[in-house]
Amino acid sequence: MCCTLSNQQRCHQCMFIVLHHMMRPLIVGLVARADLLNWAVHWMMVFVIGVTVGLLAIEKCSDKGCLSLSLLELLAFNMTFVFIASVLVLIEPVAAGSGIPEIKSYLNGVKIPGIVRLRTFLCKAAGVLFSVAGGLFVGKEGPMIHSGAIVGAGLPQFQSITFRKIKFDFPYFRSDRDKRDFVSAGAAAGVAAAFGAPIGGTLFSLEEGSSFWNQALTWKVLFCSMSATFTLNFFRSGINFSKWGSFQLPGLLNFGEFKCPDGDKNCHLWTAVDLAFFVLMGVVGGLLGALFNCMNKYLAKYRIRHIHPKAKFIRVLESLLVTMVTTIVIFAASMLGECRDLSTPTAHNTTLAGSEDINSTIRQFFCSNKTYNDMATLFFNPQEAAIHQLFHQDGTFSPVTLSVFFFLYFLLACWTYGVSVPSGLFVPSLLCGAAFGRLVANVLKVKLGMDIYSGTFALIGAAAFLGGVVRMTISLTVILIESTNEITYGLPIMITLMVAKWTGDFFNKGIYDIHIQLRGVPLLEWETEVEMDRLTASDIMETNLTYVYPHTRVQSLVSILRTTVYHAFPVVTENRQNERDFMKGNILISNNIHFKKSSVVSRAGEQRRRCQSMKSYPSSELRNVCDEQSAAVEPSEEGEDLLQQMLERSIAVTEFRVT
Amino acid sequence: MCCTLSNQQRCHQCMFIVLHHMMRPLIVGLVARADLLNWAVHWMMVFVIGVTVGLLAIEKCSDKGCLSLSLLELLAFNMTFVFIASVLVLIEPVAAGSGIPEIKSYLNGVKIPGIVRLRTFLCKAAGVLFSVAGGLFVGKEGPMIHSGAIVGAGLPQFQSITFRKIKFDFPYFRSDRDKRDFVSAGAAAGVAAAFGAPIGGTLFSLEEGSSFWNQALTWKVLFCSMSATFTLNFFRSGINFSKWGSFQLPGLLNFGEFKCPDGDKNCHLWTAVDLAFFVLMGVVGGLLGALFNCMNKYLAKYRIRHIHPKAKFIRVLESLLVTMVTTIVIFAASMLGECRDLSTPTAHNTTLAGSEDINSTIRQFFCSNKTYNDMATLFFNPQEAAIHQLFHQDGTFSPVTLSVFFFLYFLLACWTYGVSVPSGLFVPSLLCGAAFGRLVANVLKVKLGMDIYSGTFALIGAAAFLGGVVRMTISLTVILIESTNEITYGLPIMITLMVAKWTGDFFNKGIYDIHIQLRGVPLLEWETEVEMDRLTASDIMETNLTYVYPHTRVQSLVSILRTTVYHAFPVVTENRQNERDFMKGNILISNNIHFKKSSVVSRAGEQRRRCQSMKSYPSSELRNVCDEQSAAVEPSEEGEDLLQQMLERSIAVTEFRVT
Repeated sequence: MCCTLSNQQRCHQCMFIVLHHMMRPLIVGLVARADLLNWAVHWMMVFVIGVTVGLLAIEKCSDKGCLSLSLLELLAFNMTFVFIASVLVLIEPVAAGSGIPEIKSYLNGVKIPGIVRLRTFLCKAAGVLFSVAGGLFVGKEGPMIHSGAIVGAGLPQFQSITFRKIKFDFPYFRSDRDKRDFVSAGAAAGVAAAFGAPIGGTLFSLEEGSSFWNQALTWKVLFCSMSATFTLNFFRSGINFSKWGSFQLPGLLNFGEFKCPDGDKNCHLWTAVDLAFFVLMGVVGGLLGALFNCMNKYLAKYRIRHIHPKAKFIRVLESLLVTMVTTIVIFAASMLGECRDLSTPTAHNTTLAGSEDINSTIRQFFCSNKTYNDMATLFFNPQEAAIHQLFHQDGTFSPVTLSVFFFLYFLLACWTYGVSVPSGLFVPSLLCGAAFGRLVANVLKVKLGMDIYSGTFALIGAAAFLGGVVRMTISLTVILIESTNEITYGLPIMITLMVAKWTGDFFNKGIYDIHIQLRGVPLLEWETEVEMDRLTASDIMETNLTYVYPHTRVQSLVSILRTTVYHAFPVVTENRQNERDFMKGNILISNNIHFKKSSVVSRAGEQRRRCQSMKSYPSSELRNVCDEQSAAVEPSEEGEDLLQQMLERSIAVTEFRVT
Repeated sequence: MCCTLSNQQRCHQCMFIVLHHMMRPLIVGLVARADLLNWAVHWMMVFVIGVTVGLLAIEKCSDKGCLSLSLLELLAFNMTFVFIASVLVLIEPVAAGSGIPEIKSYLNGVKIPGIVRLRTFLCKAAGVLFSVAGGLFVGKEGPMIHSGAIVGAGLPQFQSITFRKIKFDFPYFRSDRDKRDFVSAGAAAGVAAAFGAPIGGTLFSLEEGSSFWNQALTWKVLFCSMSATFTLNFFRSGINFSKWGSFQLPGLLNFGEFKCPDGDKNCHLWTAVDLAFFVLMGVVGGLLGALFNCMNKYLAKYRIRHIHPKAKFIRVLESLLVTMVTTIVIFAASMLGECRDLSTPTAHNTTLAGSEDINSTIRQFFCSNKTYNDMATLFFNPQEAAIHQLFHQDGTFSPVTLSVFFFLYFLLACWTYGVSVPSGLFVPSLLCGAAFGRLVANVLKVKLGMDIYSGTFALIGAAAFLGGVVRMTISLTVILIESTNEITYGLPIMITLMVAKWTGDFFNKGIYDIHIQLRGVPLLEWETEVEMDRLTASDIMETNLTYVYPHTRVQSLVSILRTTVYHAFPVVTENRQNERDFMKGNILISNNIHFKKSSVVSRAGEQRRRCQSMKSYPSSELRNVCDEQSAAVEPSEEGEDLLQQMLERSIAVTEFRVT
């Protein structure tokens, strides 16, 4: 960034520029590889399900003993996988959760230690594989965005703290700003790969991240996202269809084609009348999302108070407990599912696109031949397949099944988010919302006899619930439009998300903001709180400033660092006049900014011991991370970054006040 | 904006907020009506072509006399229409051209007089109807964006200078910032309606306009664009298909469906190998665009020097000359077209989507039955239909025809842009580029026997040429993706546009920036020039500042305004200390900003006489506008706006320096 922006005349090295432009495709390649890694999860899960269901089918069990045997098999599989995921998170605690709150904090200028480390990447990528394969109600999209961000942060550095022995002489992209730009690009690439939504990914970075944004960066981020999408597309088309060079499979999460049957001229995906229902669904989605967030917040608070202070294996036990309950619930609920006739849906089904694909994921589960169990079809499938079922299968789920599924899934997903495994929230929310939407569609179609397209209602339900939980607006709209590859859904999706956000915001914040708040990250919002407008500089500035001289001894520095809680100090130069002004002690802000040019922040390895900016973090987990990292010695320019960051943040505040 | 941003606590009037949120849908309705108005152009042109071609067909002429009769008929039609368009532009000179440079200037903070007036809107909307119907090589997309911006600027004011008798007591949205936000939204809605591209429209406003942007605005602009797209869609679906409530027809310019035939598994829209050709096409597109811009620049300079100073009817004569030449060229070139067998294309054609639609726009033009004239098919159609032909017709244009068409179209479009009629540049550039792309596809397919999808190459050619001319990046990528409704074109379009922009930027600026420069608008670019970095405040600040006191007499003000060229003056308060500081005269900037709080700009009706900020405009046309406007008296708060604008611009500069 330095090159195109402020000090253009200073960097004449052609190499720098070339590297800068070649960097992102490199990132992209790695992101796509990360995605391929994550893709493996699908196959593992299909394998587990296949084995379980296969065992059931072969043994043709109906007596109780055999049933519990199958359940035990499934439990053993799931708990092993989740155990591995949970142990990986013990190795690197910040790998837990979706990672989006952490990335949002990072892009806002607050560095949570270890969040963009290679070790985190490895633990997260492997962990999400096992947590999804373990049958937990978690998604892999959030962790993929986090992985993308780590690749963005790490790759251009050509070094790693995890492998600190390997060093190249590559002194570029060391400034805080450069790093943040690359993280923006990486996170966008993660979204782009996950949903096949390059524009949505760019807008995600724009909406969620970055107080600092400019056109050149937007363009580069879009290029990065586009490259990630098509790198993934290239490999998936090549591997799945052996058609290298064609681009047929977009993102990992694909909603399939929403399409009216060719002959039917009266079929519409949606009409103006449906919009009224979409608004109502948005309201309900917002309410449900607020409830979800509220429950999850209390759960998270409980965890911080009662689980995190205890021994680490307690967290593993919690993960295993969740897995056990989830598996048993899935199993028990599937017994309650209705056996429905396979011929009925197929008759309707031929009118829908990709019906062969849909039918292959139907589950029989103790039902007789030519019938299938509708609850098991939803529970005993990868979540993406279940979403496909809800979007594209016509008339095959009873309202009771959908209600029970929604209720159980809602509670379990809420319990699961926050457990110490890598866990995304997008796909569970979409699936939960899709069940709700499909329920609405069933009621309208069967009870009221309206002529509607069920898939659209399922999609809108999914959007409403996801919007109610995460409260994203522009980026989520675009992501969903791109995932459906149907631009005509733009208006209904946007209206639904808007209504869901407004309704939800009436009660609480989005789930990511709640978790950011719980971790005590001092996030700088786009819009200030009302009470902030009344604050003056003197209300928030420290009156007794600790400062150092350029020639301060290391001994003094160490003692300063031991006795204070700050991580950056102004360096007072020998310029007497400045110092005298400073001693007056009443015009601190201007002094601080005045010092900027002449200051080099002093910062010793000592300081890591008490882990900078951790003072306000109530989460014991982050403290632990901190302690583990304390031995690592970092290059000294990190100190400059911190000052720069501090100053940039103060500038951001100023900008905001002015505009 | 005031409400959500800075002084939230001040505005408690619920009405204000409600109005603020209801405003944009209102705009939207009007934009859509403007679009419907513009849509009428299509029918007019079809009518003219129908009459002409019909006359030809009925008389079965082949002797020379009859031929010239038909030509004369066509000439009469076209010249009448263009005459009307040209006279409308005489009434309101800023209605000429595409309006995008003007809107870009406006959003950057430079108000060109009359650019967002109701009269301009009427002249532009009606003028573009006649200029397109007159057979000129102009598009209606640019004027539509301008129209949208005017609606955005005017509607929330509830008053108009054109109808200044009608006044409501509606004191909101009077600040410069509010107006600019509404203009952003309106311009975005214009793009959205023109191309059916709501996201692209939003990004257009973000890329081209607005130094000031925030998330809340992005979201509102997207909502506005979305509403415009779907309002238009609603009416078009209702009117064309009598299916009110369904949404089937997106934007006015629709590229049709790019789709492989259902049975053909070996057909790909594009493959990795094609990408290499796309890059080459991007380079050529950039070169052609740079040539186009260069030629158009010299032409515009010639016009400013030799045509604008003369009597106004000279401009009308130029328009008529262009029309005459265009019509004769179209006619003569069509005689050169090859008669191709109708059965050949139809055989291939059944494999392509919407072939009935495509075949209906084929022109026979002196060819015998069951054959058609390929040149006439391109020339004697509305430009949108010709683009459709190039995108979706398989194997029906000879390389010679395409080359001749491209060459003639390029020259005539270049001559036409700048003539005194409302004229967009998007569609002509797309058509020109599509011919080039189709030519490449023909060569690759027929000469080299490659298995490619011709439509994709035509699309990429169109993107390359348009990108080379306008040098837009993100927004154009998204607009084209949305127009094709095919997300898989993302990567090739982006790469092509990027290469085209880089290639073109090597030679000159984009066409809009060239025209902004020619008009002497002091546009503030995102990135500063290298030499600007060396400037200090003293290099650009005035050392002898003209200032006024709060109690200055009107007589003195008038004399100050008569003797200076500035349009804003600091008001020096009675505060002696400030004045003393000011008198020192060496710390001007800080003083200027210090005065901000206490200053009310003094500005008299007198000042209009010499038309503020017109000092540096070399274009005599704008001077004329100025003179015409001089009689109009404006409400006095405009003065404050100007100071605010000036100060905001200086803040923008500061921000930029800091980041």
